[in-house]
Order: sequence, then structure tokens, then C-alpha cells
Amino acid sequence: MKIEDKIETFNSLLRRRGFIWGPSPEIYGGLAGFYSYGPAGKALKNNILSMYRCELRAYGFYEVECPEILPKIVWEASGHLERFTDPVFRCKKCETMVRADKFLQEQLPNESIDGLSFDEMDKLLQLHRFKCPKCDIPFEKIEEYNLMLKTSVGNGVTAYLRPETATTTYLLFNRLNQDVRRQYPIKVFQYGKAFRNEISPRQLVLRMRAFDQFEIQLFIGKEQELNFDEFDEVSHNKLPLLDWKSQENQIIVPNKISLKEAVNNGILKKPAFAYCVFLGYHLTSKLGFPEETIRLRQHSPHEMAHYADDAWDLEINTKQFGWVEICGIHDRTDYDLKRHGEFSNQNFKIPMGTDSDSKEIPQILEIAFGLDRIIYTLLETTFNVVDERIVLNLPPQLAPNLVAVFPLVKNKENILKLAKKVHKLLLEHRITSFFDSTGSIGKRYRRQDELGTPYCITIDYDSLDDNTVTIRYRDTMEQKRVLISEILSYIDKK
Amino acid sequence: MKIEDKIETFNSLLRRRGFIWGPSPEIYGGLAGFYSYGPAGKALKNNILSMYRCELRAYGFYEVECPEILPKIVWEASGHLERFTDPVFRCKKCETMVRADKFLQEQLPNESIDGLSFDEMDKLLQLHRFKCPKCDIPFEKIEEYNLMLKTSVGNGVTAYLRPETATTTYLLFNRLNQDVRRQYPIKVFQYGKAFRNEISPRQLVLRMRAFDQFEIQLFIGKEQELNFDEFDEVSHNKLPLLDWKSQENQIIVPNKISLKEAVNNGILKKPAFAYCVFLGYHLTSKLGFPEETIRLRQHSPHEMAHYADDAWDLEINTKQFGWVEICGIHDRTDYDLKRHGEFSNQNFKIPMGTDSDSKEIPQILEIAFGLDRIIYTLLETTFNVVDERIVLNLPPQLAPNLVAVFPLVKNKENILKLAKKVHKLLLEHRITSFFDSTGSIGKRYRRQDELGTPYCITIDYDSLDDNTVTIRYRDTMEQKRVLISEILSYIDKK
Repeated sequence: MKIEDKIETFNSLLRRRGFIWGPSPEIYGGLAGFYSYGPAGKALKNNILSMYRCELRAYGFYEVECPEILPKIVWEASGHLERFTDPVFRCKKCETMVRADKFLQEQLPNESIDGLSFDEMDKLLQLHRFKCPKCDIPFEKIEEYNLMLKTSVGNGVTAYLRPETATTTYLLFNRLNQDVRRQYPIKVFQYGKAFRNEISPRQLVLRMRAFDQFEIQLFIGKEQELNFDEFDEVSHNKLPLLDWKSQENQIIVPNKISLKEAVNNGILKKPAFAYCVFLGYHLTSKLGFPEETIRLRQHSPHEMAHYADDAWDLEINTKQFGWVEICGIHDRTDYDLKRHGEFSNQNFKIPMGTDSDSKEIPQILEIAFGLDRIIYTLLETTFNVVDERIVLNLPPQLAPNLVAVFPLVKNKENILKLAKKVHKLLLEHRITSFFDSTGSIGKRYRRQDELGTPYCITIDYDSLDDNTVTIRYRDTMEQKRVLISEILSYIDKK
Repeated sequence: MKIEDKIETFNSLLRRRGFIWGPSPEIYGGLAGFYSYGPAGKALKNNILSMYRCELRAYGFYEVECPEILPKIVWEASGHLERFTDPVFRCKKCETMVRADKFLQEQLPNESIDGLSFDEMDKLLQLHRFKCPKCDIPFEKIEEYNLMLKTSVGNGVTAYLRPETATTTYLLFNRLNQDVRRQYPIKVFQYGKAFRNEISPRQLVLRMRAFDQFEIQLFIGKEQELNFDEFDEVSHNKLPLLDWKSQENQIIVPNKISLKEAVNNGILKKPAFAYCVFLGYHLTSKLGFPEETIRLRQHSPHEMAHYADDAWDLEINTKQFGWVEICGIHDRTDYDLKRHGEFSNQNFKIPMGTDSDSKEIPQILEIAFGLDRIIYTLLETTFNVVDERIVLNLPPQLAPNLVAVFPLVKNKENILKLAKKVHKLLLEHRITSFFDSTGSIGKRYRRQDELGTPYCITIDYDSLDDNTVTIRYRDTMEQKRVLISEILSYIDKK
């Protein structure tokens, strides 16, 4: 199958099997940048979340949940009101907006637009006198377009929908600090919606206007960053690291080295930050991405936010969109708590080091996942077409259905009854079973292959006599005859 | 303990133990109607969600997720733009808004304001010439105040934050209908945020501006509503029903009768709707509310929405706020799909009955939970103070921590190490274990009692010799010596 056909088949599967629908609301033509998850997509999302929560709990992290709407002052303090902007050209006549950097790159393919300041882009506009493609009227000047969605709460209080979950977690610092009773670092995460008024939403769920973030933080002292016990337990892990100096030397293949080595080499400066890089990678690997599709790419000093001390993107290699960032790992220093301390008149200095007389504002190390991006990239990288057979090789614990149960024929009362009994038995053991009695068995297998269901169980005439069923395993297509009483242990073993 | 003291102790516990914090953001003074969940509250929420999802899956329901922001036309079709309003008085001078019905009820305690039309309330205003309490200037007239939060998407498209999840699920009807392949009813649910710009948010998380809904729907044909197989499996269940006719006769104690009886009596008209009433009650009982705190109260025909055919509130009896609705069960008829069909020019008629030539617009039966209200009422009803001992008697599977692990002393390396090993062992078995090494054992027990932790495990000097630990059970305070290798089976058995 040609790569373009494969991509088309994949995109159609996303809709056809109830993974992703949109833009939503479809029956009203859709609003760009908003998508819905169907039953399969939502089940996959829930399974990923369960796995992340379980893993993070084991690493000592606790979850919080904060509002999506916050007053203006929060975003003044965070810097989002001032800096969370895109450069745009707006047509005076038709009011169309285009993103200036994307537009300039298209018009000037030989220039390097990425990284130019607003002023520099404005100069290019003046030089070339670019026009609105629709109206043929010259654009006048560059505008700063803020990406936050605005609303008004109560009797006219200006507020914004959060463009990230992270800031809302930082604001809980005092409460979290009471909660941990001086056991540092504070380990916390939040999962929830964030909103960005993208000028041109694109690439399905990769650049949406409302999306799910899963952001993990360490609030940590400067001393502990360099002397972090837990790093020793993970430092032997080898990660595919592509540091910025290698990138400057045109190296594009990441170097798989241990974190210990990376710290010794100075590629990673702080053991606590290296631990965060590990956590980001560890959670990603757990999802079953093929190893060669993952890399960790360091930002160059120019690419980073002005306050950041280090930043890495965890990227997945996709067929449709190339390398896609699904996670960012950032050393944010004490920037956030310093700013919120100033704007709220709170004192966030606490004793975090061995010298209990000395107080400091905690540093924040952050691991930020985009959950919708995980879902897209995971589906794409586990999607396979072999001899016209379409199959999602999702890890069993993430599959929307772990098992599907088929009565061979649907008009035989006894077979139907036994099949329903097996289905119910599985559900009672918290196994996500899907019951399907319509269409030929072959069709039913194909449907479940496309949903990534690892096990299909068929109840037939023999089942009535000897209490056995056929279990068919997705990855090998091997079929085995198993006693009903042994189904659970068979699945457990696998 | 006096009831007021008990309530105060409870309210302080919510904050002190990290259940609920707010209004958020606290460090900036808070925005009324927005709250955050701390680690304990969020863990409880997750556990409730897991239980609901697991139960609903067993009853054949599938989950979807839709955007929180939708364009204006959706809310025109749903009727929210026109009807989702509160009556308010606004002061011409200070711009303060008060809710007209609440204000009138306070000023005229002997009149019955509930159920009055906007016009009738306006007449009362004109009659009594009520004034703004701050400025002493008469209010001029009643205003309709829409409760939806408005925003602008992309280049100026007007959109609203959804005031409920339900509408967004209805819009998926075509997709869901393809997905089920003619196996009716369509059973679906959605969990997520809804937003209402309440004029006076109050009662902690009971009336917020951003809150969690968990809404369940059946899309069903008229024939199947009356002839619903699955009803037979649940019809023997006895539920505390308080129908509207009894309420008119001043009866306030619900009648515990079987659903079969209720249908035969005509208290519930349709078996499929009775099944929904059962589901609402069943999910609530599963959470461990004391039986006497639950009742199902039917709306009188005047209380219902104009399109509704039947409506019941599932209410919990609280000490602080009286009967609180945590769930509404509504027979919405074909109102929603009819309206969205008209506004979107889609044909939603499908063959749902035994006569496959006859097509109809599906009816919607709905079970709508407010998740934050579940959390508040569950915490309040399981909160107990006995002889100064504060304890949350949450069902074990919902408790934020199932187990807490304590090293008796924290400066003995061997004890600390063994305790950490036990903690890790539990986490590996997906048991939510909490590690605590600070303060006296008595203090640590008290802390876990306040979090509702069912089991506390202490590792002491003897543990080093004989590999046993002390398990203390929350509800009986019984302490038992158990081998480390037997901890898991001990907890399992309980």
C-alpha cells in the first residue's frame, strides 16, 4: 500500500471507528479547532490517563484540579497577557487575518522566518508590500494577536480561559506546601482543558483551540536540584537525547546515552531536571510507542523562553506530520512563583535547603504532555496494514476493548444467552468487553482489529456442549479453544 | 458536639485535608463560584468516576467527550439563548445586580415567589418600590440575565461556554447512530465541565460557575419506551419515591416501593424511564450514601420544563443545606433532536420500532449528575465525630488512600527502608498507598481518619524480626498483627 493511501485509510478509520469526530459540531458545519472523541477515542484516552495516574502515584505525585477561568491579574502576572501572542496581518477590507510568520515563510521560501522579531517581520512586509490574497489590498502592518479566549464573569469581571493548566497549579503553592509538611520536592500534576484561540487550527487534534493538557511539576530548592536522591534510581536509563549543540552540528540522530552520562557530559545540568526528562520518557515508553519513533530534542538558547534554564521536547515521528512534540520538559527556574509573589503580595520564600535559616523561592521543573497529541501519534504509530488487513497494535491495557464477545449466530437463543453470560462475566471482572452479534464473524474480526481489540471470543454450537470458546489473539491471529472457566486466566497470562 | 460545631469542623476539614480549596485563585482573593480540588478531593473524584464508568459499561453505556465551546446557533436551537435566564434587578447607580426572586423572597417572606413569572415579579417590584440596599435608589424594572458565558473565537465568531454537557452529546446523534448499527436504544454518557454565570454563587461547590456534570442518555423509540426488556431485570428494586401528588397532599416521607409497583400505579409511566430512575438510584447507592439520606422527588407538572414529560430529582439530606439535588432524571421527549434537526436542516428520523418502514425522531431519556454535589454530599454524610475522633466513613474503594504506611520512627534506617518497601509493594499492586513518617503515630492515625483511609499499616521494631506489621482498621479501630506477605489478601478479604 502506498504511503498516501495508508494515511488516507488511517484518517478514515479515526472517524469510522469512533475515535475522533469533527470539527465539532459537525451537524452545524463545525467550528475550526474543536473536536469530539467517540466511544473508542474516549476509552483510549481514559486508559492512558489511568496508566499515567497509576505511574505518577508510584513516583510520589499527587493530582489537583483547578478552574479553567481565571481573572485578568493572573495572566498579567504569568506574562500571558503581554507575551502570549502571534504576529498577524489583517486585511483592512475583508478583515481576514493570516499568521504573519507562516504567510511570510510561504511567500519567501528561501528566507528563514522562524525566530524573527515582530519588527523584523514588519520590515519584510514593508519591503515586499504583500497583499491580502482575497482583496489584493496591501496589508498595512503587523499586529500582536493574543491567543487567550476572553470572557466576562459575574457583573462584568474580565477573565480569560486558561491557555495552560500549569499556571493554575502554581497558584496552589501555599496550599500544597502546607499539605506536604516540609517533604520536598512538592510533586504534583494536573490534567484538564486549556484553550488557545489559534488563528489557523490544523492537523486534526494536533493544533486545536481546546485541548487536554497533563502537566507535572516539581517545586524544588536550588540545593536539592543538584543533589537529588531519586535521580540515582533512574540514572542508568538510556534515553535518545539530541542536544542543541549536536543539532547545530547538523546531527539529526539522537544519541542513546544514560542519564548519568548526560549529566557528567554537561548535556543535562541538574540531576533533578534529568529525573524529569526521565519521567517524560518513561511515561511515553509505557504507552507502547515503537522505540525508534521517540526522540528528545533540546531547545537552543535562542529557542527557549527568556526565563527558562533548559528545555527539551519529546517528539514522535509520524508519517503524516513528521516529528510531533507530545511533551515539553522545562526548567522554569523561580520565574513563576517570583511573579505571582509580586503580583499577589505573597511571600513564597520557604526553607528548602539543609540550612533551615535560609529561605528561597522554589524552582519549578515541569513535564507538560498534550494528551490529544499522544492519542493521535499513538494511533498513527500503532496503525498497520498487512495484506489488506487493517490493525491497531495498541498495547492491550490501552485498547478501547480488551475483549470482544461474538455469538456465532444471533438467532440461536442458547448461543446468544451463553455469549451474553460470558460478556457479563468479563465485565464483572472489570474487563472491558464489547458484545457484537451483527454481521459475519469475519466482519466482526475486522471491526475489532480496527479498534485494536486484543482478544475476540466466539461462542458456537460446540460451546453449548463442552463449555469451550474460541479465543483469537489479535497480533498472531492464532485461535485457541479454551474452557469458559479458563478465559480469565488465559487473558491474565497474556 | 453541637450541630453548628460539627458543621464548622467539617467545613474546616474540607480545606485542611486538601479536599476543596477556594474560591480560586485564593492568593488573588478568589473569583466567586470557582473552586479547586486538592489531592484528597481529586483522588475521591477520580475514584467516583472510575466506579461510575465501570458500572455504566456493565449496563452497556459508552462514553464520549465533546468541546466546551460551541457557536451561537447551537444555543439558539437548544433554547438556552432564549430561556436560560435568571430575573435580576440592577441598580442604576452602583450597577449591583441581585437575583429578583431571591431578593423578593427575602423582602416578602410570607409570599410564595417560587414559580412566579418575570411579569409577576415585576409587578411586585412596582408595588413595593424596592430599593438597592447600597444606594437607596429604587430598582427600575426586572431584567432577563442570561447565564451563559460568552466568548469570541477565531476572527470574531460569537460562541458560548456550554451550560451543560447534554446538548453537546445530542449533536453527535448521527455519529452515534452509525456506531450502534441499529441496536437501540443508543446508550451514551459524557463527563465534563459546564459553565453558568451564576449571579450569586453560594454553598461552596453546590452552586459554582464552573462545575462537573456526568450526564447519561438513552436515545430510544416510542415503542421501546413502553416495552423495554432491560426493565424486567431491575423492576424488583425498591426505591424511595416521593411522587408529586403525594407532595401536594403534604406527604414528605418517600414511599419505598418496587419499580414494578410504581409503573403499575402509574407513578412512573414508562418502563424505560423507570429504568433510568433505577440507574440514577443504583449509581448513588453504590457510592455508600446512608439509605435514609436519599430520596427521589418528582417534579409537579408546573415545575417541569415545557417539553418534558416527567422529571425526578434525586436528593441527599445534608445537615448544612437540607435536601440537595445531586441528580435529575428527565424524560425530554423528542424535543432536542426535533429542534436540532430544524436548525441544522438534518433529518433525524430513523426506524426504531418493529415496523421498519416507519421512522421517528428518537426520544431522549436523561440522567444528569452534578459531580461536585456528589462529592460535597458524600463527604458530609460520611463525616462523623465520635468522642472527639473525626472520621470519614467513606466506602474503601472511594477513599483517597486505601492504605497508609507508617514507619514507627523515622530515624531508624531499617524501619524506614522496610516501610518504604511495603509502600512500594502496595503501589505495584495498584493499591493507593500513602507514606507518612512525620509526627507521632497517634497524629498520623488522626490525619488518615480525616482522609477516610480504611487501613493504616505500622512498621515497628518487631517487623524487622518477624516480618509482621500492625494493620489498623478505620471503622472498628481494631489492630491486628499480619505477615507482610499476607497484607494484600487481608485487604482483599475486607
